[in-house]
Amino acid sequence: MIRHIALMTWSEEATDEQKAAVAEGLAALPAVIPQLRRFDLGADLGLAPGTSDFAVVAEFDSVADYEVYRDHPAHQAVLAERVKPILAGRAAVQVTL
Amino acid sequence: MIRHIALMTWSEEATDEQKAAVAEGLAALPAVIPQLRRFDLGADLGLAPGTSDFAVVAEFDSVADYEVYRDHPAHQAVLAERVKPILAGRAAVQVTL
Repeated sequence: MIRHIALMTWSEEATDEQKAAVAEGLAALPAVIPQLRRFDLGADLGLAPGTSDFAVVAEFDSVADYEVYRDHPAHQAVLAERVKPILAGRAAVQVTL
Repeated sequence: MIRHIALMTWSEEATDEQKAAVAEGLAALPAVIPQLRRFDLGADLGLAPGTSDFAVVAEFDSVADYEVYRDHPAHQAVLAERVKPILAGRAAVQVTL
Protein backbone atom coordinates (compact mmCIF):
# COMPACT_ATOMS: atom_id res chain seq x y z
CA MET A 1 0.00 0.00 0.00
CA ILE A 2 1.09 3.55 -0.76
CA ARG A 3 0.10 6.36 1.57
CA HIS A 4 0.13 9.95 0.33
CA ILE A 5 0.07 12.64 3.03
CA ALA A 6 -0.28 16.36 2.40
CA LEU A 7 -0.39 19.00 5.15
CA MET A 8 -1.59 22.45 4.12
CA THR A 9 -1.33 25.83 5.79
CA TRP A 10 -3.91 28.41 4.74
CA SER A 11 -3.28 32.07 4.14
CA GLU A 12 -4.36 34.50 6.84
CA GLU A 13 -6.97 35.90 4.46
CA ALA A 14 -8.63 32.51 3.87
CA THR A 15 -12.29 32.51 4.89
CA ASP A 16 -14.17 29.70 6.61
CA GLU A 17 -16.20 29.40 3.42
CA GLN A 18 -13.07 28.87 1.31
CA LYS A 19 -11.71 26.29 3.75
CA ALA A 20 -15.02 24.43 3.72
CA ALA A 21 -15.00 24.49 -0.10
CA VAL A 22 -11.63 22.70 -0.09
CA ALA A 23 -12.92 19.94 2.20
CA GLU A 24 -16.10 19.62 0.15
CA GLY A 25 -14.22 19.48 -3.16
CA LEU A 26 -11.78 16.86 -1.91
CA ALA A 27 -14.54 14.79 -0.30
CA ALA A 28 -16.13 14.38 -3.74
CA LEU A 29 -13.00 12.73 -5.23
CA PRO A 30 -13.44 9.10 -4.08
CA ALA A 31 -16.66 8.90 -6.11
CA VAL A 32 -14.74 9.68 -9.31
CA ILE A 33 -11.30 8.21 -8.50
CA PRO A 34 -11.84 4.54 -7.55
CA GLN A 35 -8.09 4.11 -7.06
CA LEU A 36 -8.55 5.85 -3.68
CA ARG A 37 -8.68 2.91 -1.26
CA ARG A 38 -8.98 5.20 1.74
CA PHE A 39 -9.21 8.98 1.92
CA ASP A 40 -9.12 10.89 5.20
CA LEU A 41 -9.47 14.66 5.46
CA GLY A 42 -9.18 16.68 8.62
CA ALA A 43 -8.74 20.18 9.99
CA ASP A 44 -6.09 20.60 12.65
CA LEU A 45 -7.50 20.46 16.18
CA GLY A 46 -5.37 23.35 17.47
CA LEU A 47 -3.69 21.29 20.20
CA ALA A 48 -0.16 22.54 19.54
CA PRO A 49 1.46 25.73 18.28
CA GLY A 50 2.96 25.88 14.81
CA THR A 51 0.85 23.16 13.25
CA SER A 52 -0.46 23.10 9.69
CA ASP A 53 -4.18 23.73 9.12
CA PHE A 54 -5.45 20.77 7.09
CA ALA A 55 -4.44 17.19 6.36
CA VAL A 56 -5.11 14.85 3.43
CA VAL A 57 -4.21 11.18 3.87
CA ALA A 58 -4.85 8.98 0.85
CA GLU A 59 -4.12 5.27 0.47
CA PHE A 60 -3.56 3.39 -2.78
CA ASP A 61 -2.74 -0.15 -3.86
CA SER A 62 0.22 1.01 -5.95
CA VAL A 63 2.34 3.92 -7.08
CA ALA A 64 0.50 3.81 -10.41
CA ASP A 65 -2.82 4.29 -8.61
CA TYR A 66 -1.37 7.24 -6.65
CA GLU A 67 -0.30 8.78 -9.95
CA VAL A 68 -3.82 8.40 -11.32
CA TYR A 69 -5.10 10.39 -8.31
CA ARG A 70 -2.31 12.97 -8.52
CA ASP A 71 -2.96 13.70 -12.18
CA HIS A 72 -6.75 13.21 -12.28
CA PRO A 73 -8.59 16.23 -13.77
CA ALA A 74 -11.10 16.30 -10.91
CA HIS A 75 -8.25 16.45 -8.38
CA GLN A 76 -6.36 19.05 -10.38
CA ALA A 77 -9.52 21.17 -10.56
CA VAL A 78 -9.91 21.17 -6.76
CA LEU A 79 -6.25 22.12 -6.37
CA ALA A 80 -6.41 24.94 -8.93
CA GLU A 81 -9.80 26.38 -8.01
CA ARG A 82 -10.04 25.83 -4.25
CA VAL A 83 -6.67 24.95 -2.68
CA LYS A 84 -4.15 27.18 -4.44
CA PRO A 85 -6.06 30.47 -3.91
CA ILE A 86 -5.73 30.09 -0.13
CA LEU A 87 -2.51 28.06 0.13
CA ALA A 88 0.31 29.55 2.22
CA GLY A 89 2.37 26.38 2.68
CA ARG A 90 2.39 22.67 1.98
CA ALA A 91 4.39 19.62 3.08
CA ALA A 92 3.87 16.17 1.59
CA VAL A 93 5.27 12.65 1.46
CA GLN A 94 4.49 9.38 -0.23
CA VAL A 95 5.40 6.35 1.88
CA THR A 96 4.80 2.62 1.84
CA LEU A 97 2.37 1.32 4.42
CA MET B 1 -9.73 8.60 17.34
CA ILE B 2 -7.03 11.24 17.16
CA ARG B 3 -4.40 11.06 14.43
CA HIS B 4 -1.09 12.88 14.85
CA ILE B 5 0.95 13.39 11.68
CA ALA B 6 4.47 14.80 11.55
CA LEU B 7 6.48 15.24 8.35
CA MET B 8 10.19 15.86 8.76
CA THR B 9 12.83 17.16 6.39
CA TRP B 10 16.43 16.21 7.20
CA SER B 11 19.45 18.47 6.91
CA GLU B 12 21.72 17.96 3.93
CA GLU B 13 24.45 16.76 6.29
CA ALA B 14 22.29 13.99 7.79
CA THR B 15 23.84 10.54 7.29
CA ASP B 16 21.98 7.34 6.47
CA GLU B 17 23.07 6.08 9.90
CA GLN B 18 21.46 9.07 11.63
CA LYS B 19 18.24 8.66 9.63
CA ALA B 20 18.13 4.95 10.50
CA ALA B 21 18.66 5.81 14.19
CA VAL B 22 15.55 8.03 14.10
CA ALA B 23 13.41 5.23 12.65
CA GLU B 24 14.85 2.73 15.12
CA GLY B 25 14.30 5.03 18.09
CA LEU B 26 10.72 5.80 17.12
CA ALA B 27 9.94 2.15 16.38
CA ALA B 28 10.75 1.31 20.00
CA LEU B 29 8.09 3.67 21.38
CA PRO B 30 4.93 1.51 21.10
CA ALA B 31 6.50 -0.98 23.53
CA VAL B 32 6.73 1.72 26.22
CA ILE B 33 3.75 3.96 25.29
CA PRO B 34 0.65 1.72 25.21
CA GLN B 35 -1.52 4.74 24.33
CA LEU B 36 -0.22 4.34 20.75
CA ARG B 37 -3.07 2.48 19.04
CA ARG B 38 -1.31 2.55 15.70
CA PHE B 39 2.11 3.91 14.77
CA ASP B 40 3.31 4.09 11.17
CA LEU B 41 6.75 5.34 10.16
CA GLY B 42 7.99 5.78 6.63
CA ALA B 43 10.68 7.35 4.51
CA ASP B 44 9.50 9.30 1.48
CA LEU B 45 9.55 7.24 -1.71
CA GLY B 46 10.95 10.05 -3.87
CA LEU B 47 8.02 10.08 -6.28
CA ALA B 48 7.59 13.86 -6.39
CA PRO B 49 9.82 16.92 -6.06
CA GLY B 50 9.73 19.04 -2.92
CA THR B 51 8.51 16.36 -0.56
CA SER B 52 9.51 15.94 3.08
CA ASP B 53 11.84 13.05 3.99
CA PHE B 54 10.09 11.11 6.74
CA ALA B 55 6.56 10.64 8.09
CA VAL B 56 5.21 9.67 11.49
CA VAL B 57 1.51 8.81 11.74
CA ALA B 58 0.26 7.96 15.23
CA GLU B 59 -3.29 7.11 16.29
CA PHE B 60 -4.77 7.51 19.76
CA ASP B 61 -8.12 6.96 21.44
CA SER B 62 -8.18 10.49 22.84
CA VAL B 63 -6.44 13.85 23.02
CA ALA B 64 -5.26 12.89 26.52
CA ASP B 65 -3.56 9.79 25.11
CA TYR B 66 -1.88 11.89 22.39
CA GLU B 67 -0.57 14.20 25.11
CA VAL B 68 0.88 11.21 27.00
CA TYR B 69 2.81 10.30 23.83
CA ARG B 70 3.85 13.89 23.11
CA ASP B 71 5.26 14.41 26.59
CA HIS B 72 6.57 10.90 27.28
CA PRO B 73 10.26 10.87 28.32
CA ALA B 74 11.10 8.08 25.88
CA HIS B 75 9.60 10.13 23.01
CA GLN B 76 11.29 13.32 24.15
CA ALA B 77 14.62 11.47 24.30
CA VAL B 78 14.31 10.32 20.67
CA LEU B 79 13.43 13.86 19.61
CA ALA B 80 16.31 15.46 21.50
CA GLU B 81 18.99 12.88 20.74
CA ARG B 82 18.13 11.62 17.26
CA VAL B 83 15.62 13.90 15.49
CA LYS B 84 16.66 17.44 16.38
CA PRO B 85 20.36 17.03 15.42
CA ILE B 86 19.38 16.36 11.79
CA LEU B 87 16.08 18.27 11.55
CA ALA B 88 15.83 20.96 8.86
CA GLY B 89 12.04 21.33 8.80
CA ARG B 90 8.85 19.91 10.26
CA ALA B 91 5.12 20.13 9.59
CA ALA B 92 2.52 18.55 11.83
CA VAL B 93 -1.20 18.31 12.52
CA GLN B 94 -3.51 16.59 14.96
CA VAL B 95 -6.86 15.66 13.43
CA THR B 96 -9.86 13.56 14.33
CA LEU B 97 -10.24 10.32 12.44
